[in-house]
Amino acid sequence: MGDRDMQALDAYFVAERMRHLEEYREFLRIPSVSALPSHREEVLRAADWVARALRQAGVPTVELLPTQGHPVVYGAWPAENPGTPTLLLYAHYDTQPADPLDEWTTPPFEPTIRDGRMYARGASDDKGNLLLTLKVVEAFSALRGQPPTGLIFLFEGEEEIGSPNLRACIQEHKDLLRADAVMSADSVMWAHDAPSLVLGSKGLIGLQIDVQGAQSDLHSGLHGGLAPNPLNALATLLGSMWTRDGQIRIEGFYDEVRPLSERERAEIAAVPFDEASYARSIGIPAPVGEPGYGPLERNWARPTLDVNGLWGGFQGEGNKTVIAREAHAKITCRLVPNQVPAHVIAAIERHIQTHCPPGITATVEQTAGSSSAFAIAPTHPVLRVAREALRASYGRDPLLIRLGGTLPVAEYFQKDLGQDIVFLAWSMPDEHLHGPDEFFRLENFDRGLRIYTDLFERLSVQWES
Amino acid sequence: MGDRDMQALDAYFVAERMRHLEEYREFLRIPSVSALPSHREEVLRAADWVARALRQAGVPTVELLPTQGHPVVYGAWPAENPGTPTLLLYAHYDTQPADPLDEWTTPPFEPTIRDGRMYARGASDDKGNLLLTLKVVEAFSALRGQPPTGLIFLFEGEEEIGSPNLRACIQEHKDLLRADAVMSADSVMWAHDAPSLVLGSKGLIGLQIDVQGAQSDLHSGLHGGLAPNPLNALATLLGSMWTRDGQIRIEGFYDEVRPLSERERAEIAAVPFDEASYARSIGIPAPVGEPGYGPLERNWARPTLDVNGLWGGFQGEGNKTVIAREAHAKITCRLVPNQVPAHVIAAIERHIQTHCPPGITATVEQTAGSSSAFAIAPTHPVLRVAREALRASYGRDPLLIRLGGTLPVAEYFQKDLGQDIVFLAWSMPDEHLHGPDEFFRLENFDRGLRIYTDLFERLSVQWES
Repeated sequence: MGDRDMQALDAYFVAERMRHLEEYREFLRIPSVSALPSHREEVLRAADWVARALRQAGVPTVELLPTQGHPVVYGAWPAENPGTPTLLLYAHYDTQPADPLDEWTTPPFEPTIRDGRMYARGASDDKGNLLLTLKVVEAFSALRGQPPTGLIFLFEGEEEIGSPNLRACIQEHKDLLRADAVMSADSVMWAHDAPSLVLGSKGLIGLQIDVQGAQSDLHSGLHGGLAPNPLNALATLLGSMWTRDGQIRIEGFYDEVRPLSERERAEIAAVPFDEASYARSIGIPAPVGEPGYGPLERNWARPTLDVNGLWGGFQGEGNKTVIAREAHAKITCRLVPNQVPAHVIAAIERHIQTHCPPGITATVEQTAGSSSAFAIAPTHPVLRVAREALRASYGRDPLLIRLGGTLPVAEYFQKDLGQDIVFLAWSMPDEHLHGPDEFFRLENFDRGLRIYTDLFERLSVQWES
Repeated sequence: MGDRDMQALDAYFVAERMRHLEEYREFLRIPSVSALPSHREEVLRAADWVARALRQAGVPTVELLPTQGHPVVYGAWPAENPGTPTLLLYAHYDTQPADPLDEWTTPPFEPTIRDGRMYARGASDDKGNLLLTLKVVEAFSALRGQPPTGLIFLFEGEEEIGSPNLRACIQEHKDLLRADAVMSADSVMWAHDAPSLVLGSKGLIGLQIDVQGAQSDLHSGLHGGLAPNPLNALATLLGSMWTRDGQIRIEGFYDEVRPLSERERAEIAAVPFDEASYARSIGIPAPVGEPGYGPLERNWARPTLDVNGLWGGFQGEGNKTVIAREAHAKITCRLVPNQVPAHVIAAIERHIQTHCPPGITATVEQTAGSSSAFAIAPTHPVLRVAREALRASYGRDPLLIRLGGTLPVAEYFQKDLGQDIVFLAWSMPDEHLHGPDEFFRLENFDRGLRIYTDLFERLSVQWES
């Protein structure tokens, strides 16, 4: 992009800044909490608002795609000539619930600017990021009549409840979604002073284990040494799953895990991680986990198995000499690339049946759909260009990070559209996503406008599919 | 006892039977539920009722001994001559709560006779047994002016809430309680057609284990492989306590356990136990427990460790990818003779600290006072005589049984009065003690009258201290 062009766009962003903020506030005032059935109309209102903003930005085709739940907002602005790539841009217009309300400094749906930050539910996750992409399109539209690449918009309203209907929508509308690459404006940076790009995230499986002994609760005096104790059994079963220092002992669990390559270890090692300050921040003496791996390797690139819930028997004051009839546990595993969720589930089920103590019946049930891990090659053409755009803006190479969490949408785009997704957004880990006093740094709104602008320009000239 | 004498007493019991039943009903109508603060007056009313019944039986000294809780009813009828032994007789006049009320066929405090059984809360546990001992004394009083042995009565009103004030009362009134032997009219028989005497019961310790990781709940995506998981840790800790088939692996746990003698194994083997019908009754394929021991050996004579409660983290629908900050377990151990509760507690605490995974803090707290196991020699003079009296009445030798449960009062009499307690009462395991439709077989009221009568007579002539 020529300097003159960039100056014109820059001047436009400066001139329109107050209007942008006003629109941002308007968007944030809509309590589009997807988890609450009572907010159904508000979520729909947010969808309409986004559709209107797309039209206002000049996008020629805009429609709401109905789903079993909240609609997907779809927009398309085809590329002017066939040599120019078309990008599909994903984001979401729904938000988390806002409770506990009394922990907010200002009400969650009354957006307030303090110290250059916009405070509101959804400010960072994900309305700020979604909106800035629209304002980039609007700027191109205003100054040049059209953005430099083809664009498809896919903004969902159910991300915060696990995107239950997104996959079906993608499958149903495959024709509308044909693109040369997919980007997501729903993502985090490593830190405000450390720009980053995401190379991967983990898969997820969730299981509930129910163990049952006798048909009713029993008195431990009358039945001790005779009746199976499901709580003892559950502890035995779960306790057999790890070594004391956290290596997983389930046969077959690690079978499909590809060892980290030299390149991957080097990429991970390049990301600064202060173990002491991390430990301090959560009140533990030091990070812990599987031996033989560094902390970020464990969080990003080694599968984990966590018991998330555990219950059975008596939980009151004092003691009760009961042998309860049943006990329960919920576990989730975070998976790494190459692990097939169904294979890991089968290994855990086998382990449970093999280790189940005599007299106990154990059943295993999935608590949610499972996701594979996601990984994108650092050589992906859009990722490469995004890296250049970030370097140009920040004056430093972005960190190449991974996520210990799970991005189910990444798997949908991979499986159904054959596209690895490039994540580029400015939510920061300290911006209280999902908590009270969520905020977004306004300087990142400005930075995001310029970087997305630069990125579209670069892609229009550097594209080699 | 001469046959003539016995005939006279028998005739007395027959003649007075309707009055006895009327008094039994009157006693049962008092809802002396010790657990309910709202029933304080009713418990006191029951104490007064028992004191009056003692006086009516001719007992010269009767008083209520105040405690921090409900009073103890005390009575004393000294022996006529110094060669005659004095027995201390223990029982309790309080009852369990009666709920769930709607599961009773007739109201719990409106005693009703059906099919030769008295239905009411406390009918079997323990008002029927307590009352019949008073009616024996009353009979001796009416026909002979005095019972054949000295007697001390100690009837408490807090047995159903764990006898919190009994020990202090015994210690405070040691002088009043000096006796040659102690008996309890609060006990069960092996079965209605299988009379039995109790040779021992188990001790009890109760602990709560609290494990803590980070200072707050964490997201497993952000913190997986980094933060300690207290639920994983608790399972690891507890799971390390047994082998899969139920042997306890805590170092030192079995150290003080005296191996079963040939005699003890023979006594236990003589008690019929149908494994298949037991298993059917609680809905399991077969009894389970520590290898190398029979089912009754395990229940009666081998220490056990049961997790009674377990909780932590997320217990709702679906899954939640949380690493909870803490998790909890309640455990109790049933101990056998020779095991010192404090030593077993120390062994468990050591085990927990030794096996605690890195990054986790585990604390252990006692949830109740601990009890040692109780054992009485089959050669105990009163037990021997009780055996004879049962044999004479039933025409067969009683079974010598033990209890898998705990009798804390046995320990008090052993520790504070130096007396092993002889249990003799007619509650049956099928009489719904503590449940709805509790009942007592009236034929056992009659049988109890005669056997206690016979026992006092035999003791007065066979005593060798």
